Amino acid sequence: MPRKPSFDRDDLINRARDVFWSRGWAGTSLKDLEQTLKLKPGSFYAAFGSKDALYELALEKYAEDGRARLEALASEVGALEALKAHPKRILDSDANAAKACMLAKTYLELHTHDHPLADRADTLLSGMETLFEDLFHRAQTDGDIAKDRDPKRLARRYQSDLLGMRVTAERSKSDALAIAEEIADGLSAL
Amino acid sequence: MPRKPSFDRDDLINRARDVFWSRGWAGTSLKDLEQTLKLKPGSFYAAFGSKDALYELALEKYAEDGRARLEALASEVGALEALKAHPKRILDSDANAAKACMLAKTYLELHTHDHPLADRADTLLSGMETLFEDLFHRAQTDGDIAKDRDPKRLARRYQSDLLGMRVTAERSKSDALAIAEEIADGLSAL
Repeated sequence: MPRKPSFDRDDLINRARDVFWSRGWAGTSLKDLEQTLKLKPGSFYAAFGSKDALYELALEKYAEDGRARLEALASEVGALEALKAHPKRILDSDANAAKACMLAKTYLELHTHDHPLADRADTLLSGMETLFEDLFHRAQTDGDIAKDRDPKRLARRYQSDLLGMRVTAERSKSDALAIAEEIADGLSAL
Repeated sequence: MPRKPSFDRDDLINRARDVFWSRGWAGTSLKDLEQTLKLKPGSFYAAFGSKDALYELALEKYAEDGRARLEALASEVGALEALKAHPKRILDSDANAAKACMLAKTYLELHTHDHPLADRADTLLSGMETLFEDLFHRAQTDGDIAKDRDPKRLARRYQSDLLGMRVTAERSKSDALAIAEEIADGLSAL
């Protein structure tokens, strides 16, 4: 049998990502996935192997897409402007299945159960923090933020503030938008 | 049969809170609870009725205790100093079963499932935000922060920053402690 075209597979992974992202790991059954992907158990198994294997693909897709969007934005408007615009763009995206970060939700749900997906989420969160650090460093090279600021420290705080904003966004979009604006204003003052 | 003394009941609720807080709602089975509380199914049912009823008691106890601790601290050191010390105190408390906020964890896990406990967590989070607002207002009355700052806005951002710091703390205590310090420094500059 010829291999299925990869765009089909990507579409299935994206749909699974949205279910996992909004409902959580424990809140998503194999049956939920089979229904969402319109796959029979045998086809599901042949395509992805297991719920956890699909979750890992979805998590990686989520992180890769987020990373690619932020890098594209930085190429377009520069590092500092990208960091300033990023929080609001997350909140405004209608494509997002949930407002909270999928990596953080996964980590919170699974690390007390010593689940390997928590380690994966942790690594991907560190990868995002490194991208933020690179962008703060670029902003410094561009002369947009003071030389004496530590990009590592700025990235750590930025990621923490984003995580808080995104938890807030699950409860109130207007509150989260106000916070996004404050985060951007804070960066302008660096 | 005489009613059990309430301190016993409080102790059971505290133990249940710690299991729910660290393992989450879906991650905690009735069996886990019966083992933790050393209760047989019949006694568990007689004492608490259901897992959800006990979760609600635990959630309320969690919020009440947090509120009481912060109010006691404010009476002792004043509103602004209490707000500044609060983030670090959360991280340093060895009594906490998890670093992330139990209200936020509950909300994130359950609101997409339209579970009534998510509404309860939402209300309790709003109650904490109101306490923060009161304290920012008191700090203003004390002359410790500028008159032109909006206590409501400050409270919203403070809560969001705390939530982010507490998600960070699940991954790295040292990173979270650095953020706690930055939050405190930020309040000193108001």
